[in-house]
Amino acid sequence: MSITVVGSIAYDAVTTPFGKRERMLGGAAVHFALAASFYDRVHVVGPIGDDFGETDLDTMRSRDIDTADVERLAGDTFFWRGEYGWDLNSRETLDTRLGVFAEFEPKLSETSRACDVLFLANIQPELQLRVREQCDRARFVALDSMNFWIEGAREELLRVIGTVDCLVLNDAELRQLTAKPSLVSAAREILSWGSPDHPRGGPRMIVAKQGEYGAALITPEGFFALPGYPLETVIDPTGAGDTFAGGFVGYIAARLHEEDLSDELLRRAMAHATALASFNVEEFGTERVTRLTAEEIAARVRELREITHFSGDA
Amino acid sequence: MSITVVGSIAYDAVTTPFGKRERMLGGAAVHFALAASFYDRVHVVGPIGDDFGETDLDTMRSRDIDTADVERLAGDTFFWRGEYGWDLNSRETLDTRLGVFAEFEPKLSETSRACDVLFLANIQPELQLRVREQCDRARFVALDSMNFWIEGAREELLRVIGTVDCLVLNDAELRQLTAKPSLVSAAREILSWGSPDHPRGGPRMIVAKQGEYGAALITPEGFFALPGYPLETVIDPTGAGDTFAGGFVGYIAARLHEEDLSDELLRRAMAHATALASFNVEEFGTERVTRLTAEEIAARVRELREITHFSGDA
Repeated sequence: MSITVVGSIAYDAVTTPFGKRERMLGGAAVHFALAASFYDRVHVVGPIGDDFGETDLDTMRSRDIDTADVERLAGDTFFWRGEYGWDLNSRETLDTRLGVFAEFEPKLSETSRACDVLFLANIQPELQLRVREQCDRARFVALDSMNFWIEGAREELLRVIGTVDCLVLNDAELRQLTAKPSLVSAAREILSWGSPDHPRGGPRMIVAKQGEYGAALITPEGFFALPGYPLETVIDPTGAGDTFAGGFVGYIAARLHEEDLSDELLRRAMAHATALASFNVEEFGTERVTRLTAEEIAARVRELREITHFSGDA
Repeated sequence: MSITVVGSIAYDAVTTPFGKRERMLGGAAVHFALAASFYDRVHVVGPIGDDFGETDLDTMRSRDIDTADVERLAGDTFFWRGEYGWDLNSRETLDTRLGVFAEFEPKLSETSRACDVLFLANIQPELQLRVREQCDRARFVALDSMNFWIEGAREELLRVIGTVDCLVLNDAELRQLTAKPSLVSAAREILSWGSPDHPRGGPRMIVAKQGEYGAALITPEGFFALPGYPLETVIDPTGAGDTFAGGFVGYIAARLHEEDLSDELLRRAMAHATALASFNVEEFGTERVTRLTAEEIAARVRELREITHFSGDA
């Protein structure tokens, strides 16, 4: 299998209570690709500016990520500056500069179009739709978005949601998208869009990201929830959600050639996603994940099983 | 075994997006006792006013709860009025009237003093300490508190925390109590107070309540986390935390005569606590828990196992 991801490639300036970085490699497509690269070959689609360093491309290439569809345009790379509060649960965006992203028009190579698995990271829904249409042979497609598009491009967002298998959103975004007060009711509402009597179509599974509290998976058949991996110290949450998605989608891509997309497979994918995200937040930006090993991921997945297990009543 | 609880017995006026109640039975001791009554005999210690109805005492007595130490004083019963936001994650206190609680001086009967297990619900730490001293034969003591006492009666609170086995707090309160930014670091800090080189003493386990996200258990040996039970509709979260504590402490009380206080026992207690809390929020106040059966609790505990289970890697 192979995975294509479209999304931002960025430089981030981040301040947390534990330090700061003035210009570090970031962006949803980068965090996703680094995580997913532990499971399968990843093709990254997205724009960079004149200022984007070759060493940052090398960071991706060193994980065997295909950067042929990373397009260099005249202008600056997407830039985000943010600052986190003392317990890292609140963050303020201080600056966002779209740079080359403002003009970006995704053009996929035949290799990227031929992917089995596609991740539409959080970008303008219209661009997501155009990439989705090009990858018409994908067996599994997942999508992330954000409050900005839910408010500002709702119709386009609903259209692209109708073409994917899996929606990956924060739980507050799920509530906002559906105006339903509980996670379960919001997820069930979205799943109903995929029923035969709904003209728009919709996903067959929802992943609700819950920050430090973990994540939940809702399918028509059931519910699964996993707490976040307990960390004594979190240094920088930037990119945790995309790293989570990379672990989730990457694990599925690696298994889809030998097993069906069962509830059991999805649960294992959630555990890998949770493990990946926990490594991501231990250091700034991509610093920890670029040094990670498959053995470390497997060990943390085993720990997650241990910390969530309880026996039946005596 | 038997359980003694000291805390508020109240009338609550609650508005949620799903309805309202102008005057319903509530209070930490009541919610705790109703939940714990599924596991063991509970003695309630707390004041009520002239206005407290005999039928509300009957609600407790019908669950075989001992109300001999519910003391009727001249004045009004403790009253709380609050309103919840649309997704029930925010709540505003509109009115709090201490009533007879302002003058309350806990006097425990010999039966209440002879308890094996004691729960100090969220009241003034000085009162908690006075009750703690009277129950000097208890094998297991747990304590709840709130931001108001962490800010306003810190020294007294630390003193009583030094005398208990288990601290049950919201995760934000744990952070506030320790000024540590993460749940794990906050819990480890509090557990260190119980070490031989710390003069004050402290609990040997921490339960962190996380609202709809579930709860975590931190001991010197390990970590356990359980998501909240997924509910499509939550009607009224009032009393969920005390109902959780009642399930947790109640289950432990019921098992302590035949097994040690092992990590495995505590994890099962967390599951029962989570199940109890999930029933509590399905209707207003105590309405659902007073109709509950042990079979329903056991079924929900089994469901919690199912929704948190994942298999090892293939």
